Amino acid sequence: MSRVLSADLRKHVGERVTIAGWLHRRRELKSVTFLILRDRTGLAQVILPSGSAAEFGEETVLQAEGLVVASPQAPGGAELTGPELTVLSGPAEPPPFDLYRPALTATLPTILDNAPTTLRHPQLRAGFEIAAASAAGFRAALDALEFTEIFTPKIVGSATEGGANVFAIDYFGRPAYLAQSPQFYKQAMVGVFERVYEIAPAFRAEPHDTGRHLAEFTSLDAELGFITDHFDVMRVCRDAVAGMATFARERSGEALQLLGATPPSVPAEIPHIHFTEAMAMISAATGEDVTGEPDLAPAHERWLGEWAEREHGSELLFVTGYPLASKPFYTHPDPKRPRFSNGFDLLFRGTEIVTGGQRLHRYADYLAVLAERGMEAAQFDGFLEVFRHGMPPHGGFALGLSRWTALLTGAANVRQVTLFPRDLHRLSP
Amino acid sequence: MSRVLSADLRKHVGERVTIAGWLHRRRELKSVTFLILRDRTGLAQVILPSGSAAEFGEETVLQAEGLVVASPQAPGGAELTGPELTVLSGPAEPPPFDLYRPALTATLPTILDNAPTTLRHPQLRAGFEIAAASAAGFRAALDALEFTEIFTPKIVGSATEGGANVFAIDYFGRPAYLAQSPQFYKQAMVGVFERVYEIAPAFRAEPHDTGRHLAEFTSLDAELGFITDHFDVMRVCRDAVAGMATFARERSGEALQLLGATPPSVPAEIPHIHFTEAMAMISAATGEDVTGEPDLAPAHERWLGEWAEREHGSELLFVTGYPLASKPFYTHPDPKRPRFSNGFDLLFRGTEIVTGGQRLHRYADYLAVLAERGMEAAQFDGFLEVFRHGMPPHGGFALGLSRWTALLTGAANVRQVTLFPRDLHRLSP
Repeated sequence: MSRVLSADLRKHVGERVTIAGWLHRRRELKSVTFLILRDRTGLAQVILPSGSAAEFGEETVLQAEGLVVASPQAPGGAELTGPELTVLSGPAEPPPFDLYRPALTATLPTILDNAPTTLRHPQLRAGFEIAAASAAGFRAALDALEFTEIFTPKIVGSATEGGANVFAIDYFGRPAYLAQSPQFYKQAMVGVFERVYEIAPAFRAEPHDTGRHLAEFTSLDAELGFITDHFDVMRVCRDAVAGMATFARERSGEALQLLGATPPSVPAEIPHIHFTEAMAMISAATGEDVTGEPDLAPAHERWLGEWAEREHGSELLFVTGYPLASKPFYTHPDPKRPRFSNGFDLLFRGTEIVTGGQRLHRYADYLAVLAERGMEAAQFDGFLEVFRHGMPPHGGFALGLSRWTALLTGAANVRQVTLFPRDLHRLSP
Repeated sequence: MSRVLSADLRKHVGERVTIAGWLHRRRELKSVTFLILRDRTGLAQVILPSGSAAEFGEETVLQAEGLVVASPQAPGGAELTGPELTVLSGPAEPPPFDLYRPALTATLPTILDNAPTTLRHPQLRAGFEIAAASAAGFRAALDALEFTEIFTPKIVGSATEGGANVFAIDYFGRPAYLAQSPQFYKQAMVGVFERVYEIAPAFRAEPHDTGRHLAEFTSLDAELGFITDHFDVMRVCRDAVAGMATFARERSGEALQLLGATPPSVPAEIPHIHFTEAMAMISAATGEDVTGEPDLAPAHERWLGEWAEREHGSELLFVTGYPLASKPFYTHPDPKRPRFSNGFDLLFRGTEIVTGGQRLHRYADYLAVLAERGMEAAQFDGFLEVFRHGMPPHGGFALGLSRWTALLTGAANVRQVTLFPRDLHRLSP
């Protein structure tokens, strides 16, 4: 089938062409019927004598061959007239939603229960276009920095982060787990490629039922060696986020427009603030003494987001030097203030979207910290081995694609921008 | 640290620079010691007075600041002299392998048990460079054809392909499974984006202990709508494989050279043969009547690979029209010969690397085939729903990254080109 896409219709005024797509909407007037066909590039209008398409329910897949006529009021400035219609799919039952309305009028659970159909709504679809563009931007930025893409296993023999919230699998009769992150593997691969990234699912048996947590999410991970400290990692993180923003803008411009969303303008250097300074500042400003807290609460993140916007004109802010005790065991301490870490978070519009930092790279340091935390070194045996054979100072970061996309598009819940989300209650479709 | 990479050393002759990497090899002569440092771009030679680096074991991570001198016999034509050495990592124990030898002398199980270290061997590493380049080529080809990248869930409520060999998960106390493929999701997403692809792990509880089967593999999946039949899918598949070959050649040229590997030259149209013709030809040539067989045996695939090479000068061959009964239930029959399918395999050097085809797109057809095969429609409820609301004729294909890379590099076992492989017996590292 030689098919013209709806976005290209106007280039064919005066020609007979074939278009194809879903019947987005049918409007019957006295003497004429308008069919709006939807394809991957947008909408196209088809004009018929009244009553001649009454049998077609919305979402029927149609092919229409007809004459293209300029029409200023049609989508794209042209419409198809006098068409021969062919049904490409059996008669469709109209979905339980009016996909042609500007917004879907259904609750989020209903929308998610019917995701294969509701995702066709231009507003829902838009989020996934932006996510795809963002992932491509992440890759392009890291490719330019000579990172190598890796594909690491998601079935693992022991819990990656050494703890709770793992899904257990029956692995040929043996216990195994779903990887919470590619942490150990990406560190090991620094020993091979120096700079690696991975875009892959990660799994957390999150007991939290919030708009931010999912049981499965797409994690954008990077790790690099031969760093001085976490500031080298933050520079790479900045470039990755800049790539995501740029690609979102360039590849999913229409989707952004539809959602009224604007990617952040990413400064050449994202402003940064040390955790202790941030806590002092929040205490001074709010009158609530938070200087003893081990971590930022969501309200503190929001406060800092507003501060960064006001003070630095930036929607992005690095917070560095979180207390070591609140960070995973592989986190490198700040050599000058060993109670604090060389870890960082990146806040975007007042919410954490990236966690990263410098990692320990010496075998003895790992043994010491595991002993100190009362964790069994044996559990991490295969992983620790690599640190006996020369690992450079290194660090990395991870970013959740859905959280980024939700913040970028203003979605209140990450489920709106996650394909077929998985949570405490949801396992299908 | 401002660091010069070993591949760039020759551009700095006469300058003092800093290089850094792993001590790949130390060679002590009477009056002089050669240190070979390995970084992500290759090897660099450092010259020292004899005995001055005796304490450094192989794989120690070193930084060396010194004068670059032209030296025709050094790797890259330049070497570093009179260096100040800094150890970037604690003293390394030499790994249980001589990573500097041209080939690793260890059995595959030993190599895999020590993967975090053995992967540093240039020959092993090379396979993963080629895999990364190939994945990038797949994406680039599909991006150019206006496909949208998707990220679908790997935890699913029912077994994707309706059958055996699934891993069971404890999902918050409920039974769930690891996805064997993104099949249903990519089909559903044709309803949203028309053309989609995904690169993600897929899971099969494979009881087979062969050089071709793994419990987890990276699957390159594509699916597209508004096709006439499977030949439209095969054209896209051809472009995807051509992209993989081109990117492998352009981005991983040195790795290919090291392994003596050459990507296939992909013809503008890959030759194709119908399953029945193939079987008749094999029967005639071998004297063994295979015309009643439901599928190609590996020996038949090899025979066809040689035939395609001989007859068409092509290392790639499509076999179309496999008997419908041997294909999954969602396979579209050949309208003219309904016992056969609109499915295809792509053989590369006599081994199947792609399976694909046209899918059923009508709701009634799904109900009929499930009833015929004695499968429960209820099991596929969420999936089948989408076919009630208009799905265009569509199809797609899947390609295993490791199998492609193994065939390309001549690896006898997919485990050699899979990062931390998972199989019946192997769950770590």
